[in-house]
Amino acid sequence: MDNQQDLNGHSGSSSRAMPPRGFPVSEFENRLSRAQRLMNEQGLAALLLTTEPEIRYFSGFLTQFWQSPTRPWFMVVPFWGKPIAVIPEIGAATMAATWIDAIRTWPSPVPDDDGVSLLAWTLLEVAGRTGRVGLPMGPETHLRMPLADFEALRAKIGGIEFVDATPIIQALRLVKSEAEIAKIAAICAIASDAFEALPHLIAPGDTEESVFRTFKIELLRRGADDVPYLVGGAGPGGYGDIISPPSRRPLQAGDVLMLDTGSVFDGYFCDFDRNFGIDTVDDATRRAYETLYRATEVGLQAARPGATCADVFASMWRELSNDDEAGTTTGRLGHGIGMQLTEWPSHTAFDQTVLQPGMVITLEPGLNVGAGRMMVHEENIVIRDGEAELLTRRAPTELPLVGD
Amino acid sequence: MDNQQDLNGHSGSSSRAMPPRGFPVSEFENRLSRAQRLMNEQGLAALLLTTEPEIRYFSGFLTQFWQSPTRPWFMVVPFWGKPIAVIPEIGAATMAATWIDAIRTWPSPVPDDDGVSLLAWTLLEVAGRTGRVGLPMGPETHLRMPLADFEALRAKIGGIEFVDATPIIQALRLVKSEAEIAKIAAICAIASDAFEALPHLIAPGDTEESVFRTFKIELLRRGADDVPYLVGGAGPGGYGDIISPPSRRPLQAGDVLMLDTGSVFDGYFCDFDRNFGIDTVDDATRRAYETLYRATEVGLQAARPGATCADVFASMWRELSNDDEAGTTTGRLGHGIGMQLTEWPSHTAFDQTVLQPGMVITLEPGLNVGAGRMMVHEENIVIRDGEAELLTRRAPTELPLVGD
Repeated sequence: MDNQQDLNGHSGSSSRAMPPRGFPVSEFENRLSRAQRLMNEQGLAALLLTTEPEIRYFSGFLTQFWQSPTRPWFMVVPFWGKPIAVIPEIGAATMAATWIDAIRTWPSPVPDDDGVSLLAWTLLEVAGRTGRVGLPMGPETHLRMPLADFEALRAKIGGIEFVDATPIIQALRLVKSEAEIAKIAAICAIASDAFEALPHLIAPGDTEESVFRTFKIELLRRGADDVPYLVGGAGPGGYGDIISPPSRRPLQAGDVLMLDTGSVFDGYFCDFDRNFGIDTVDDATRRAYETLYRATEVGLQAARPGATCADVFASMWRELSNDDEAGTTTGRLGHGIGMQLTEWPSHTAFDQTVLQPGMVITLEPGLNVGAGRMMVHEENIVIRDGEAELLTRRAPTELPLVGD
Repeated sequence: MDNQQDLNGHSGSSSRAMPPRGFPVSEFENRLSRAQRLMNEQGLAALLLTTEPEIRYFSGFLTQFWQSPTRPWFMVVPFWGKPIAVIPEIGAATMAATWIDAIRTWPSPVPDDDGVSLLAWTLLEVAGRTGRVGLPMGPETHLRMPLADFEALRAKIGGIEFVDATPIIQALRLVKSEAEIAKIAAICAIASDAFEALPHLIAPGDTEESVFRTFKIELLRRGADDVPYLVGGAGPGGYGDIISPPSRRPLQAGDVLMLDTGSVFDGYFCDFDRNFGIDTVDDATRRAYETLYRATEVGLQAARPGATCADVFASMWRELSNDDEAGTTTGRLGHGIGMQLTEWPSHTAFDQTVLQPGMVITLEPGLNVGAGRMMVHEENIVIRDGEAELLTRRAPTELPLVGD
């Protein structure tokens, strides 16, 4: 699938039919009622949210303004009624375009009281003087407000007790709606197309830096909104580092090049990689690629409702650890994806999260290929009744070559 | 300045001479010795850092992997000797390529103890059982680790007291080195070129979405590493919302289009905008543009060593508030920039930060143009002895037109 391209080199949107942007209000109503049911079970008067994905989850509030660390943003989800946005004035117009009605603002930045009093009043109104308020405090969460402001807030709200809301947030976000899955599928399709096109856009002798730039532009041309994450590496028979920026080293015959992208459509991520041989690669590299392909295949078969992440890990790990080869991990062999590049859960030996239909996860087997080098594969799938559904177009069965 | 472009539409790097990537070790040694002097003055045994810019400031550790919320990252800066990285294994190779020698890792993610014990041992080793450890807790900071893990850490380190290190971090990062300024200047030049080229790349009838895409691709082509921030808007005589994603509304005659980008070179941001008239604009719009231009000019004259941010604010605000027009702010009329899109300080009526040579700031006057619409301008400058130096190419004196 190629895009139209005018003489200036910029393209219109992809010719692929894209899902609509945003969500119907019913999506947010469903999220809220699921949340309130869980809050009710735990006797919570409200949730206090401070981070981008959580505030977006309940409101649809989508902006790159989170890049600025200056201003804190708050959302209070009461046990009854709609969420309340407690936000800097600069966000009022954008928030007013969402389904949220209650928008309380202050003229941030005001370091002396950056929303703390306004938030305290809101919490006291919703939770009373002795209510329990859920706040994400567990794995993979953080509090996006100054710690000193949090202490000031605690002092202002007296008897309100904060309890960990991580299990509630995890339970809500773990299973995606069909509308969410459609957005992830859309960005997976765009990135799959861009990966397929890449061997025709680069050549041996190109630097990693130029290859990264070319690939980012290709992703944008094909309809990605943004490419917040592009990492990778290249080296003879494998790569040593998979989270660094690109080097200025030129691609050489015998190299394996890997690119791993978290691109975005309408606020939803893909997260997968592809490997390419440069000119020609040796037999050990071909075998390593095939082993990774087989491990992914085994993971695909294992990823069914009722299986745990530990089961998926174990099935892939068995395939990676054979007489001739040694598996390797980046701490896990895959994870959840969605509104963030990586989400709960993880495919580790100890993660007992049970797979359910609607969960979107990656499968990411790795092989140690010697001398501090590795190869990794990655696909994105959604758990369905029975077999999982691939959201990425499956990697080729044999290592594709550049400049062949 | 045009880039080379091959038949596939991807470009090589810019023909502009770019500053070298990374920093000499002496840059980090200077940062560390300045930090340790300040720590010594306050009797701190160590700093504990958890956020991307702070860890990068002391190490040079540059990766997009921070997009993943799964793993916490720590850096301990002792009062004597080099910083100690306490990080997930996945980052070891990237960190080993920096000037940091002491790299302690654990196989994250391990939700039961995600680096907490390792960090506790490191703090106890550096600060003893009763030392004072500086942690950023003030305005514009946050703690990037789960709150429950922070409580677990506190329990493990007993008598160690955390005190607010925000003033130290602000003092260090407020004044940029010439090597840092060169990186900001490089991305400002790239974005200035891209803004100048834009009227030739877009046309009336294009949607905001297509304009944003075209501009992002142009920025990448001209040498931006990434475009983490691109916001803007378009509407008749002004725009109502300056932090939303682009709409699918086509540009119409009489519109003012504004694009505001935080693009990045080697981890350093520009942050400025440009306005464009579509086809033709009315006299009120031309006058508003001229007022904003004059207000920026006044700000440029005011931004000298010894003046405060409040002085810069007051000088621009006077120019914006005249018989016919009403100034507006997004809470401030500019701010610091550097490793982040926005940094301390802010141009507000109350910010008494004194400007010093080497500070890099934006000037961002705004005008209310009626009916919930505004126009904003922005330039990036570095404070020098005497007059400030523009890092952006100054906006045209008259509103440039698209499709004229």
